Amino acid sequence: MHPKLRRLAVTAAAAALATASLAALAQQAPKPEQLIKWRQSAFQVVAWNAGRIKASLDGGYNKDEVIRASNAIAAIAGSGLGGLFAPGTEQGKGWHDTAAKPELFQDGAKAAERAGEFNKEAAELAKVAANGDPAAVKAQFAKLNRTCKGCHDDFRRID
Amino acid sequence: MHPKLRRLAVTAAAAALATASLAALAQQAPKPEQLIKWRQSAFQVVAWNAGRIKASLDGGYNKDEVIRASNAIAAIAGSGLGGLFAPGTEQGKGWHDTAAKPELFQDGAKAAERAGEFNKEAAELAKVAANGDPAAVKAQFAKLNRTCKGCHDDFRRID
Repeated sequence: MHPKLRRLAVTAAAAALATASLAALAQQAPKPEQLIKWRQSAFQVVAWNAGRIKASLDGGYNKDEVIRASNAIAAIAGSGLGGLFAPGTEQGKGWHDTAAKPELFQDGAKAAERAGEFNKEAAELAKVAANGDPAAVKAQFAKLNRTCKGCHDDFRRID
Repeated sequence: MHPKLRRLAVTAAAAALATASLAALAQQAPKPEQLIKWRQSAFQVVAWNAGRIKASLDGGYNKDEVIRASNAIAAIAGSGLGGLFAPGTEQGKGWHDTAAKPELFQDGAKAAERAGEFNKEAAELAKVAANGDPAAVKAQFAKLNRTCKGCHDDFRRID
């Protein structure tokens, strides 16, 4: 084969491989609707567990229940939720239309800061819960709730 | 007041209190639709994180990603998901119609056994992931997946 032809063939083969890889990647990458569904699910699981902690604080403290619920919130807060707010998910429907404001995607630094606060206070709650002092849990749970509210105020639409 | 009348008044007051307490309890207790929504959400978050672990094992192992994802699965598996399958949630719609088979509610012992296996293998995966050996993670992830499949075969409808 002529060297020029061989180069062309190699280039064409490389291009075909790259296209195939991109296609495989595109196939693997979850669709925006799936990402939105997952993030809505993650916050639902957080809400479930926050409700269990609140119920325990409001009456009949159950240490094991609070530990389990706090661990679940901490693990979700620390799971890398940012990946579920990938480009392409600014709008769209998961279980329902996304409630994320455009600002969340426009101000990545602030969003990361808010996520970091949530992660920090959730990890702290898991530690405090393990010690089993309801008053300390109540105080830390309030701190955690403030990070939820802060982020919602900035980045969640109220319809 | 005549003793008989007093007894009657006391009984009536106690009955009124009991009714009020039950009403308050009913108000606090999440509705079946909410419980179904939460359990569907919890398994979605498990699926998200299982997908991340699989992607890491399939190419370009990311230790931190696998740790975060494994921790999230372990915390959810250990969170007490059984409470989301409370009586009254045998049928109904959360995000969608429940896929739980009647057998799940009829054979509580078997369901608890399946949940225990899931919890055990998920906790083990979180430990193995922390060590960062991809081959060990792959083997333990396969064990975890078998507990998912086992439970789905027994208790999840395929529509």
